[in-house]
Amino acid sequence: MATLTNRQIRLARRPEGFPKPGDFRLASEPVADLQAGQLLVRIAYLSVDPYMRGRMSDAKSYVPPIPLDGVMGGFAVGKVVESKNPAFAVGSYVGADFGWQEYAVSDGKGLRTIDPAVAPLTTALGVLGMTGMTAYFGLLRVGEAKAGQTVVVSGAAGAVGSVVGQIAKIKGCIVVGSAGTDDKVEYLTKELGFDAAFNYKTTPDLTAKLRELAPAGIDVYFDNVGGSFTDAVIPLLNVHARVTVCGQISQYNLEKPEPGPRWLHQLIVKRARFEGMLISDFAPHFPEALRDLTGWYREGKLKFAEQIATGGIEAAPAAFIGMLNGKNLGKQLVQISDA
Amino acid sequence: MATLTNRQIRLARRPEGFPKPGDFRLASEPVADLQAGQLLVRIAYLSVDPYMRGRMSDAKSYVPPIPLDGVMGGFAVGKVVESKNPAFAVGSYVGADFGWQEYAVSDGKGLRTIDPAVAPLTTALGVLGMTGMTAYFGLLRVGEAKAGQTVVVSGAAGAVGSVVGQIAKIKGCIVVGSAGTDDKVEYLTKELGFDAAFNYKTTPDLTAKLRELAPAGIDVYFDNVGGSFTDAVIPLLNVHARVTVCGQISQYNLEKPEPGPRWLHQLIVKRARFEGMLISDFAPHFPEALRDLTGWYREGKLKFAEQIATGGIEAAPAAFIGMLNGKNLGKQLVQISDA
Repeated sequence: MATLTNRQIRLARRPEGFPKPGDFRLASEPVADLQAGQLLVRIAYLSVDPYMRGRMSDAKSYVPPIPLDGVMGGFAVGKVVESKNPAFAVGSYVGADFGWQEYAVSDGKGLRTIDPAVAPLTTALGVLGMTGMTAYFGLLRVGEAKAGQTVVVSGAAGAVGSVVGQIAKIKGCIVVGSAGTDDKVEYLTKELGFDAAFNYKTTPDLTAKLRELAPAGIDVYFDNVGGSFTDAVIPLLNVHARVTVCGQISQYNLEKPEPGPRWLHQLIVKRARFEGMLISDFAPHFPEALRDLTGWYREGKLKFAEQIATGGIEAAPAAFIGMLNGKNLGKQLVQISDA
Repeated sequence: MATLTNRQIRLARRPEGFPKPGDFRLASEPVADLQAGQLLVRIAYLSVDPYMRGRMSDAKSYVPPIPLDGVMGGFAVGKVVESKNPAFAVGSYVGADFGWQEYAVSDGKGLRTIDPAVAPLTTALGVLGMTGMTAYFGLLRVGEAKAGQTVVVSGAAGAVGSVVGQIAKIKGCIVVGSAGTDDKVEYLTKELGFDAAFNYKTTPDLTAKLRELAPAGIDVYFDNVGGSFTDAVIPLLNVHARVTVCGQISQYNLEKPEPGPRWLHQLIVKRARFEGMLISDFAPHFPEALRDLTGWYREGKLKFAEQIATGGIEAAPAAFIGMLNGKNLGKQLVQISDA
C-alpha cells in the first residue's frame, strides 16, 4: 500500500473563553506501517461534544489535558482498511476515541465493532453510543427516575438531553425540557414527545416557568448546563429529589468564573442529592444499556437528530465551536470520509 | 394539685441576622388540667441547636416556621409529675420536642422513655439522642464512611461534629476536624482522638491546610457549616466522595445571602455526591443506632462534652445565641429545673 497521509487537527493554543478557530491547527503526517496485531482505521465520522472543552484547558480533570500541539481527542467511527489483527477484518466498522484525524492505528484494545445493518453507522456515536448510554445511566442509575415522577432536562435538544427525555417518557415520567431556540422547543414537544418545553433565553423568570410546567415539583433534574438555570431549579426540588450533574456547558467558556447563590441549605430541607457522573464508570454495564437502547430504537421509541458537518477534517473546529454555541439540534458530527 | 404556672419562651419577632434577646419574650400561663390519656412533664433540660434558627424565619422549610408569639420548639427531657396515661408512671423520665417551657402536657405519642441508670439524663439530648443519631446516620448511611477512608468534619467541636469524629475513629477512618478556637482544636485531638484538627479562624488558606492534614484526599465530608469552608473542601474531594449536608450554620444568620463560587463541574470530575439529611427520615432505624451508640458509650469509646446553662427558662435565649456564635464545646443545654 502506498504511504497514506493522515491529516489531523491539533491544539495550537489553550483557549481563553470560547474557543476560536486559531486555537486549532491542521497538521499532516504519514501513516506508519502496521506492526503485528495492529489495524488501520479510516475515520468516517467524528463526534464533537461539550466535554472536549475541558480537555483543552490544563486544569486538573478526570482525563489529562490534551498537550499543546497534541491531536484533539474524540470518539469516532470508521472502516478497517488494513489489518494485522485477526480479530478485525478489513471492511468491518469500529469505534473508539480515535481523535480528530483521518486515520488511526489501533492495537484493537477498547475498540467497539459496529454492525451497520442494525442501525446507521452514526448512531454508534449518538443514540446507540456514549451519548445514549450517558443519558441511560444518568437518568436511571444516578437519577433513579421512576414512573410518575417529574423529570426536568436542561440542554434538552442536545445529544444527551434529547435521549434523556425520551427514555424518561418510555419509563412513564412527566418530562419538561429547556432549550435555546423556539425551533428546538417545538422539536422536543412535537417530535420527541416531551410533556412540555420552553426557551430559556426568552423566559424572564425560569423558576416561575418551571413551577408552571412542573406543578408537582421536580423529582429528577438532569443537569447539562449549570449556572443560573440550575439555580432556578433548586427551589422546586421535591423531597428526596436527585440531580444528575452531567454537564455544565454554561460555565465552560467563561473567561473568569462567575459566582452564584449558595443553596446547600436547601438540600437539607429537601434531603436532596447532587451527584456528578462520568459514563466510563458504567463500562461493566454497557452491554445491557446498548441492548435496551437498540431495542427502543428498533421499536421506533427512540428518535434522534444529528447534524453532520461536511468538508472533512478541516470542518471539525467550526462544528465544535458551533455546538458550544448551541447551533446543533441533537448530535453534532463531522463527516471525515465516505463510510 | 394546685394550679401550676408554666413559664415559656415565645418568639417575639422574626430575627434579622443574628437573633437578639429582644426577639424572644418570657410568658406564663397556667398548666391545664390533664385529660384522660395525658401526662404532665416537668422539663429538666432543654437542648438548643442550630436548626432552630431556621424555624424562627418564615421561609419555607421542612417544618412549619414557629408562629409569631408561638412557644419556641426544641427537644427536652423531664420527669413525669402527673399522669392519666397508664404507659407513663409518675417519676419516670421522658424526652420529646417539648419546646422552651417549664412544663409540657403530652398524650404520650412520640415520647421516648429514658432510663437514667444507663447514662446521665442529659445524654438523651446529646450523644444518645437526636444529636448522636444525626452523627451516626449522617456519617454511616448518607456519607457511607468506610475503614481507611479520610473523613473531614466541620464544626467538629459542636454537638453533632464531635460524635461524627468519634464514630469515624471507631470505624477505622482517618479523621480531620475544624473548629473555631484553639481550645476546641486541642480537645478534638487530645480528648476525642481526632487524627488532626485546626482552627479555621486563624488559617489563611483552608484548602492548603486541609491538603496538608488529609494528604490522601477527602472521601467523606460531614458539612455542618457550609460557606467558604465547604468551598475549600471541594477541590480535595476524592473520586466518588460523599458529602453529608447536615448543617450550614455559616449561612443562617446572614442578613443577606452571600454568593459563592460555582463548583458543580467539580462534582462531574470527581463523580462526587452532595446529599442533604434530616434525622427524622431515619426514625425506623433509631433503635439500632441507639443500641450501637449506647454500647460505644458504655465501652468508653464515645466521650461527650456538654455546657449546661443555669438560670432556668430565662437563660435559654442567651444560651441559644451563644451556641450560634460557637461559644459551646459539644452540646449546649439549658437546665430548666432539678432533674
